[in-house]
Amino acid sequence: MFALHPQLQADTFPVTDLQLCRVLLMNDCNYPWVILVPRKDNIREIHQLDGAERQTLMDEMSNVAQKLEHAFSAKKMNVAALGNMVPQLHVHVVARFEEDPAWPTPIWGKVPAKPYDEQSKALMLERVRSLLVPEADMPLQEAAQ
Amino acid sequence: MFALHPQLQADTFPVTDLQLCRVLLMNDCNYPWVILVPRKDNIREIHQLDGAERQTLMDEMSNVAQKLEHAFSAKKMNVAALGNMVPQLHVHVVARFEEDPAWPTPIWGKVPAKPYDEQSKALMLERVRSLLVPEADMPLQEAAQ
Repeated sequence: MFALHPQLQADTFPVTDLQLCRVLLMNDCNYPWVILVPRKDNIREIHQLDGAERQTLMDEMSNVAQKLEHAFSAKKMNVAALGNMVPQLHVHVVARFEEDPAWPTPIWGKVPAKPYDEQSKALMLERVRSLLVPEADMPLQEAAQ
Repeated sequence: MFALHPQLQADTFPVTDLQLCRVLLMNDCNYPWVILVPRKDNIREIHQLDGAERQTLMDEMSNVAQKLEHAFSAKKMNVAALGNMVPQLHVHVVARFEEDPAWPTPIWGKVPAKPYDEQSKALMLERVRSLLVPEADMPLQEAAQ
């Protein structure tokens, strides 16, 4: 039975479930920052997923990155599976900008998280959900290349 | 014609070429740290690869991570495509340990790189190459860069 790690639960808001992953919005309005968590038990590393799950993870993280890049006109997408502190496998997908507070260094530990207020949280959740939900089961579009 | 970004060329040693990616050893003996660079022109984001290339990338980064984890008895593998400063798509695969100088935070910007001396460089390259290269294959020629 899949259960989200308490730290991820505390730091994020749920966006939607894709075929493999739960999509979470990180409660840090410094960056458009989502986290993908495969809904599998006791997985710490990408290579612990089976081959089909790894391919689905690749599709989902690529699709989410492409959608966020386009919607927010990001300068660069950062995609990372770290997990040194929270052992449940989770993949960060973060839209980066030259004017963001950590640019050009990685975001982790750079500036304190800046929580969303209620209104901006609702707006951001709606925006990210609208990007991901209608096409959640469709393959990644190649057209944007 | 694929050409490695000058910054990656300066910071790494070539290990081998897999089907899609050139494998590089980062010149920082603080961590067993390899970088995978798809041998494609003008690709900055994983989602700019086509579907088959993305699947190959997933296979190669998972395989490299699993081999390094096992060979070095890593506590955790960190896998990340950041690229804010070096725009050529490259995926970091880093073996992490509770006793490494950045644990448990991400490695980037934490402590200065600690270059290999000649002897330890040769040993590390031999070790990583033996993990990734089938015995019959020759190591990557320096000229092929």
